[in-house]
Amino acid sequence: MPNKTKSIRRTLADLIRQVWEENLRLKASGLVTMTWGNVSGIDRRRGIVVIKPSGLDYTALRPSDMVLTDLTGRRLASTLMPSTDLPTHLVLYREFSEIGGVAHTHSTYATAFAQAGRSLPCLGTTHADYCYGAVPVTEVMRPAAIREQYEANTGRMIVRKIRQLRLQPMACPFIFVANHAPFAWGATPSAAVENAIVLEAVSKMALLTFLLDSPRRSLGGRRTGISQALLDKHYLRKHGQSAYYGQTKSGVSINGNLHARH
Amino acid sequence: MPNKTKSIRRTLADLIRQVWEENLRLKASGLVTMTWGNVSGIDRRRGIVVIKPSGLDYTALRPSDMVLTDLTGRRLASTLMPSTDLPTHLVLYREFSEIGGVAHTHSTYATAFAQAGRSLPCLGTTHADYCYGAVPVTEVMRPAAIREQYEANTGRMIVRKIRQLRLQPMACPFIFVANHAPFAWGATPSAAVENAIVLEAVSKMALLTFLLDSPRRSLGGRRTGISQALLDKHYLRKHGQSAYYGQTKSGVSINGNLHARH
Amino acid sequence: MPNKTKSIRRTLADLIRQVWEENLRLKASGLVTMTWGNVSGIDRRRGIVVIKPSGLDYTALRPSDMVLTDLTGRRLASTLMPSTDLPTHLVLYREFSEIGGVAHTHSTYATAFAQAGRSLPCLGTTHADYCYGAVPVTEVMRPAAIREQYEANTGRMIVRKIRQLRLQPMACPFIFVANHAPFAWGATPSAAVENAIVLEAVSKMALLTFLLDSPRRSLGGRRTGISQALLDKHYLRKHGQSAYYGQTKSGVSINGNLHARH
Amino acid sequence: MPNKTKSIRRTLADLIRQVWEENLRLKASGLVTMTWGNVSGIDRRRGIVVIKPSGLDYTALRPSDMVLTDLTGRRLASTLMPSTDLPTHLVLYREFSEIGGVAHTHSTYATAFAQAGRSLPCLGTTHADYCYGAVPVTEVMRPAAIREQYEANTGRMIVRKIRQLRLQPMACPFIFVANHAPFAWGATPSAAVENAIVLEAVSKMALLTFLLDSPRRSLGGRRTGISQALLDKHYLRKHGQSAYYGQTKSGVSINGNLHARH
Repeated sequence: MPNKTKSIRRTLADLIRQVWEENLRLKASGLVTMTWGNVSGIDRRRGIVVIKPSGLDYTALRPSDMVLTDLTGRRLASTLMPSTDLPTHLVLYREFSEIGGVAHTHSTYATAFAQAGRSLPCLGTTHADYCYGAVPVTEVMRPAAIREQYEANTGRMIVRKIRQLRLQPMACPFIFVANHAPFAWGATPSAAVENAIVLEAVSKMALLTFLLDSPRRSLGGRRTGISQALLDKHYLRKHGQSAYYGQTKSGVSINGNLHARH
Repeated sequence: MPNKTKSIRRTLADLIRQVWEENLRLKASGLVTMTWGNVSGIDRRRGIVVIKPSGLDYTALRPSDMVLTDLTGRRLASTLMPSTDLPTHLVLYREFSEIGGVAHTHSTYATAFAQAGRSLPCLGTTHADYCYGAVPVTEVMRPAAIREQYEANTGRMIVRKIRQLRLQPMACPFIFVANHAPFAWGATPSAAVENAIVLEAVSKMALLTFLLDSPRRSLGGRRTGISQALLDKHYLRKHGQSAYYGQTKSGVSINGNLHARH
Repeated sequence: MPNKTKSIRRTLADLIRQVWEENLRLKASGLVTMTWGNVSGIDRRRGIVVIKPSGLDYTALRPSDMVLTDLTGRRLASTLMPSTDLPTHLVLYREFSEIGGVAHTHSTYATAFAQAGRSLPCLGTTHADYCYGAVPVTEVMRPAAIREQYEANTGRMIVRKIRQLRLQPMACPFIFVANHAPFAWGATPSAAVENAIVLEAVSKMALLTFLLDSPRRSLGGRRTGISQALLDKHYLRKHGQSAYYGQTKSGVSINGNLHARH
Repeated sequence: MPNKTKSIRRTLADLIRQVWEENLRLKASGLVTMTWGNVSGIDRRRGIVVIKPSGLDYTALRPSDMVLTDLTGRRLASTLMPSTDLPTHLVLYREFSEIGGVAHTHSTYATAFAQAGRSLPCLGTTHADYCYGAVPVTEVMRPAAIREQYEANTGRMIVRKIRQLRLQPMACPFIFVANHAPFAWGATPSAAVENAIVLEAVSKMALLTFLLDSPRRSLGGRRTGISQALLDKHYLRKHGQSAYYGQTKSGVSINGNLHARH
């Protein structure tokens, strides 16, 4: 099947270029100071993950600098070291089978939520358009989990929190890692980057909303967000079975039991 | 009357180009993250509304992508779907006969006011130059109004609040939709976009003013704004019968009973 | 004296160009939303004030659009209307004989101080490098002063506050007009614009400093600023008799009795 | 040894160009309003310090404008005056033998910490990647220290605080000077500028984190930061003996007794 082989090869080359482009886009979006960010993508058929190399300046980055690994982190055909966050990405790819891309940043407002160890309730439709409920924050990591396999354990903390809250990964495509920064994911590297941009915008809006709240409601953190009806309306008109946002008439069904948590 | 027909056609072509330009300007102004914004305009003589298509990226947008509908939302000569917010725009055009353009954004500071469900008292002359009093916030929508005809009901909530406060739409050219974001309008699509830009600037100034207030005055929300005399002076020197701002000596009278609320 | 006449004419042409350039620079600095700002300059020998025309867009502004008036506001050789704030500028030129330029903006953070009616104590050396003490705020204007000669009265309120605090205009080159926005001035139009930029930067730093203070000190507004010794050091090493900042060895003495307020 | 002489000369020319480039980069980074910032570098072999001239606009700056002095501040081969902050830089070079560059800014958020006289606890991994613990703030300077040798005393206050806290200069590469602004340093002028950029980003994240905290924890300043295990992990994976961040397998050991404070 030479045609299929060629097609697979082309898919991989496309993915490498996509991951490279999305890393540049992440930088251009203003979310990344220094080299504090990375994007990866996965070729599920071949089990190959493509990720930004560690510590390299974005301006000099070429597609051929992207690092390829398998799902255990073994490097394939690259002399550069992958992002130190690779093991976190790998855990997400292994545990969330529906995702195709991961984006990590230290974007300012989302990082403030991560540092405050505070989840972000859904305060408006901007948020509801992308995330079906609050943005969670992971538990603070214990010293033992930090000392050994720190980066993989970061991924495990993310997965644990998503599972514990009974969330679908595609209906909650980002999280705050306590004391660290946000991770976002999506069906593709491009969707992961978009979700990272959305999370930063929504985090900034939320912090400003808290400042406008009365002290009792805001600073004590008791504000709980919009009505279930409004959350349903906005999330589902964009992502539900009968979505009508955008140029397609039939929406992408993310998950059969999306409403499981109701 | 071939000349008149030609003139009407030209007017429509001009409007399409204006709406396209103002959508790009809205994006360039920094008020729009992703595709969170849309501008429309109306040709009152023909009863045709021109609006941005749904979910399309601004960089690829061409004038021919603009969607034309009548005042009930029936599409004319376009294969693209209109912005999902179209029904909100249509209610505003039907109810506010003096407006010629509508702009909707999720701009950061104005959205924070919308999310906090907080109106914006007139705190200074920047505000008074554009809006004759506080910027209102709509009531929180009930689940039934969300489930059916959500977007049209959003427009109805806006109209209800403007009427309830006995405001002239041109003297209060923007509003916060609770849990959602701002809508702005004006005599033309360009004026609507300008008002959207003004509202964001004024919202940011107000939030910072609250932070500078003492806790009792600010966080409890009791600050009520500038004197009636200063509000009159600034609003009327720009918009009143004897306006003297800008390069025209006689001002545009917005409404005969502008002073009705005194 | 044809040479002197020529020189005077050249001086005026230079001033017109300077005022035009400084209006563009003010816009480019990011301090001006819409057309909310204006810069003027004065030719003291001829008693001619040059100012931006009212309400014109900066991008289309040409040097020949600048409006020339005498010190009473009578227009000379221009068909455009001057900025509506002209009478404020004129009062400042008439009362502060040492100034050569005035800049007015609605820059965000400085306007927040004006709207809060709060003066800005000197909290650090950034401030001390430009202003010898707190930035004052004018009194709230009475209705009668608003209704008649509003713009000239704005200038009178500024002068009254500067005199009441026994400040030298060059040692306190800006002020917050309550409920309105800042005015800045300087020896030249360029210096006035620089002071407007400095005031915005210093206002932002101060607001953030208040947020970092403990509630008692910050929100109650009791923080009073840096020591007199540090204020003297920074202000005088740049502006005093033996200034040593910059490339000139001898400083510009602003005023003989600069220390009068000690 | 003509070759060695040539090499030394080339090193000096390289340093001059580096210092010039880093001054421009500091301005381009957005950290510098007006001329409020300067970068220097040192040629340890020759004992020559290269620094920005005082008060010159960045846009007109050429490499040949850089000012060369010895470690006592005596000017070598330059007609321009050095930055007034030179004596501060010189104290740091004399006392911290491991540093090769110094950067000073009045960047907004870091200056707010300096003005509030508040140290910055390590609230997250962004901070931990660059600084092994809290960012300290110097003591408020006494009038006598301000009046005589003010700039050198600023350097002495910095050194005193770093020593008093038993910090390694390379493990705490920045500080807030109370009532003034931050100073940053590093192995090279480039590293010093990077640290200045990092400090501003981390300061902004921290201020926003405080705003998200509950009033008791935040405004009273009791938040103390991340766990020692997480601080160790992040700082040491980048700077420790067995660092694995970036493209080199063996990390740069900053100091033998880095762990002295444990």
